[in-house]
Amino acid sequence: MLSKNIQVALKGNSVIRAMFNEGKEMAEKIGAENVYDFSLGNPATPAPASVNQAIKDAVDGLDSMELHGYMANAGYPDVRTAIADNLNERFGTDFTFKNIIMTVGAAGGLNIILKTLLDPGDEVIVFAPYFGEYRAYAGNFGGVIVEVAPDLENFQPDLVDFEKKITDKTKAVIINTPNNPTGVIYSDETMTQLGEILLKKEKEYGHEIYLISDEPYRELVYDGAPVRFLTGFYHNTIVGYSFSKSLSLPGERIGYVVVPNEVTDAEDVQSGIEISNRQLGFVNAPSLIQKAVAKCLDEKTDVAYYDKNREYLYSELTKLGFTCIKPQGAFYLWVKSPVADEEAFVQAAKKHHILFVKGSAFACPGYVRIAYCTSYEKICRSMPAFEQLAADMGLR
Amino acid sequence: MLSKNIQVALKGNSVIRAMFNEGKEMAEKIGAENVYDFSLGNPATPAPASVNQAIKDAVDGLDSMELHGYMANAGYPDVRTAIADNLNERFGTDFTFKNIIMTVGAAGGLNIILKTLLDPGDEVIVFAPYFGEYRAYAGNFGGVIVEVAPDLENFQPDLVDFEKKITDKTKAVIINTPNNPTGVIYSDETMTQLGEILLKKEKEYGHEIYLISDEPYRELVYDGAPVRFLTGFYHNTIVGYSFSKSLSLPGERIGYVVVPNEVTDAEDVQSGIEISNRQLGFVNAPSLIQKAVAKCLDEKTDVAYYDKNREYLYSELTKLGFTCIKPQGAFYLWVKSPVADEEAFVQAAKKHHILFVKGSAFACPGYVRIAYCTSYEKICRSMPAFEQLAADMGLR
Repeated sequence: MLSKNIQVALKGNSVIRAMFNEGKEMAEKIGAENVYDFSLGNPATPAPASVNQAIKDAVDGLDSMELHGYMANAGYPDVRTAIADNLNERFGTDFTFKNIIMTVGAAGGLNIILKTLLDPGDEVIVFAPYFGEYRAYAGNFGGVIVEVAPDLENFQPDLVDFEKKITDKTKAVIINTPNNPTGVIYSDETMTQLGEILLKKEKEYGHEIYLISDEPYRELVYDGAPVRFLTGFYHNTIVGYSFSKSLSLPGERIGYVVVPNEVTDAEDVQSGIEISNRQLGFVNAPSLIQKAVAKCLDEKTDVAYYDKNREYLYSELTKLGFTCIKPQGAFYLWVKSPVADEEAFVQAAKKHHILFVKGSAFACPGYVRIAYCTSYEKICRSMPAFEQLAADMGLR
Repeated sequence: MLSKNIQVALKGNSVIRAMFNEGKEMAEKIGAENVYDFSLGNPATPAPASVNQAIKDAVDGLDSMELHGYMANAGYPDVRTAIADNLNERFGTDFTFKNIIMTVGAAGGLNIILKTLLDPGDEVIVFAPYFGEYRAYAGNFGGVIVEVAPDLENFQPDLVDFEKKITDKTKAVIINTPNNPTGVIYSDETMTQLGEILLKKEKEYGHEIYLISDEPYRELVYDGAPVRFLTGFYHNTIVGYSFSKSLSLPGERIGYVVVPNEVTDAEDVQSGIEISNRQLGFVNAPSLIQKAVAKCLDEKTDVAYYDKNREYLYSELTKLGFTCIKPQGAFYLWVKSPVADEEAFVQAAKKHHILFVKGSAFACPGYVRIAYCTSYEKICRSMPAFEQLAADMGLR
């Protein structure tokens, strides 16, 4: 007699996580080196040495209560100040610690933002393809996901459809750029227009519509694309950030939320998010790792590591006849399925021990997502399997 | 235009947390040594040295992906196995890793249990006095808290009232022993009867009623009381545990849930809790600290540290004329307010820079909670202030 939502979820558990588990089982059977698991965004590039050093320094240098004890639900003031200062320096913002709330990763951050904003029945707009967990996150608080259809040309948000989908019930819009799963960066033009539409609709309906920017891939950009901070495009923008990808710490569950002063009733929103952090049971972001990341804010993930994978995988799969979107950021390759039903493509790949995720999991059937945050060697080793897959699919 | 729930919460934020913040502000003004802050359960005894050593060993010894990467949402299998083995050894249970789900503290654990079980309108029974956050946790999933009135004689659960409060809508019952805020340990007799009532009512209503045992204070017992594991009293018992108190790690957010095989549809409950861990945005318990606690399962917190505080505070406050419940476990002293309105007592104490929490926050007005997890020296230094408070209250 479990909750009805969970009974449904038990039947259709996360496709990505199911793949991850399937990959582990396959690896036990035939050896990890023979499984080409491109299912999960689990960075293979190690955390910078400075992170591990900062952890050890904190353990050696801080009093136990300061290191492992409770602090305010929003996190350590010194850590929040360090992040505010770092953002100000990099992006010309003027944050103080009050604008920053430390969170249990970006997933924790998005949930406490949504808990703060949503009443049951409120609508949350997302742009397909999008990270499927948004549906669960909004659903946690009775929110209703409204999808904007994908623009299959360039995978920028379809702003014409977007404008049509905004109603009096629209409370929030979630964007994710660089994008999971497409690797596309939403252009400045897109962001400017999106901000203009939201401003117009706020006036039309007479209430706030919040733009939630999910930014785990913020720094992961290629070809010299600028690293952007998106609060400048629209006043009611709230940012959810994670160190999972930028410092290769996904298991540590550490990130932060930014609520700029430009947000309507910013102090209430900040307090509401802090309360939500407590009420949902996060209480606070893990303490030791807060202290550690604060010392590593200028560290950069090894973008070159992913870039090498990106160039190789994109060029090799294209040569094999696959149609791929060249990623501008993040570490996912978005590939058109050679057959209409991409589930058949996923199953065909499994026969060659290649695991990737079907586009339907991102509300965009007909495509698949290949996570190339693995080692370069694994990608190279997988090529004969991809060749066979291309042949199976009739591409060669 | 925030969520209605959060608008309400903004008006009446957590009394305990408000006290904690007030204490910090007071300390800034008059010096920390002059504030006698007994508001929060933030252990002053340091984490065992072995925990910090285990953290450093893990950082030095483990590959970055193993240390900081994603794992299954339920946690590392080796950590879960270590905990299962340790519980089996100590309590004669027969758990495997499948029975254990690693969580973001007990607060995270309770939330994912409740998300798995509750549909909107389901009732969750609690025994006053109880930790006020249970109300928020149940409310997160539309659960309705039903309070059993306190037994002011001995603060054991009032089982007569309990039986009356069970209805067809009762989905879960939360217990917490050793108890926050009273320090009382629910007796074996209480637990046996409670189990019998639940079994009877399950049959009567023809559906499961889950007993959720919130056990952060499990090992914190005095006077040679046995450390108990409560799944033996009733088949549908789910345990939420935290290392916050037992290893002095409240800021690290690390704990686990136990779902024994005796629970109805145990595998579905386990999977449901794992899914809830992901969907609520916890994703997994923080990785490094999982590895560390697994090496310290036989570590014991310094019970003698708290016991010294307990004996001294209890005897001194009793001498001053206060009526106190002598704690059997945990680290809270439950004191009868000398005036009917305990809020007046709290305010009078503040004048002497003594901070403690009003009983109303635990649904038990007329009492206050004094957290004595502080240093012994601070308690000693506070005595002149308590003397003045006793005088103000007309006790001397």
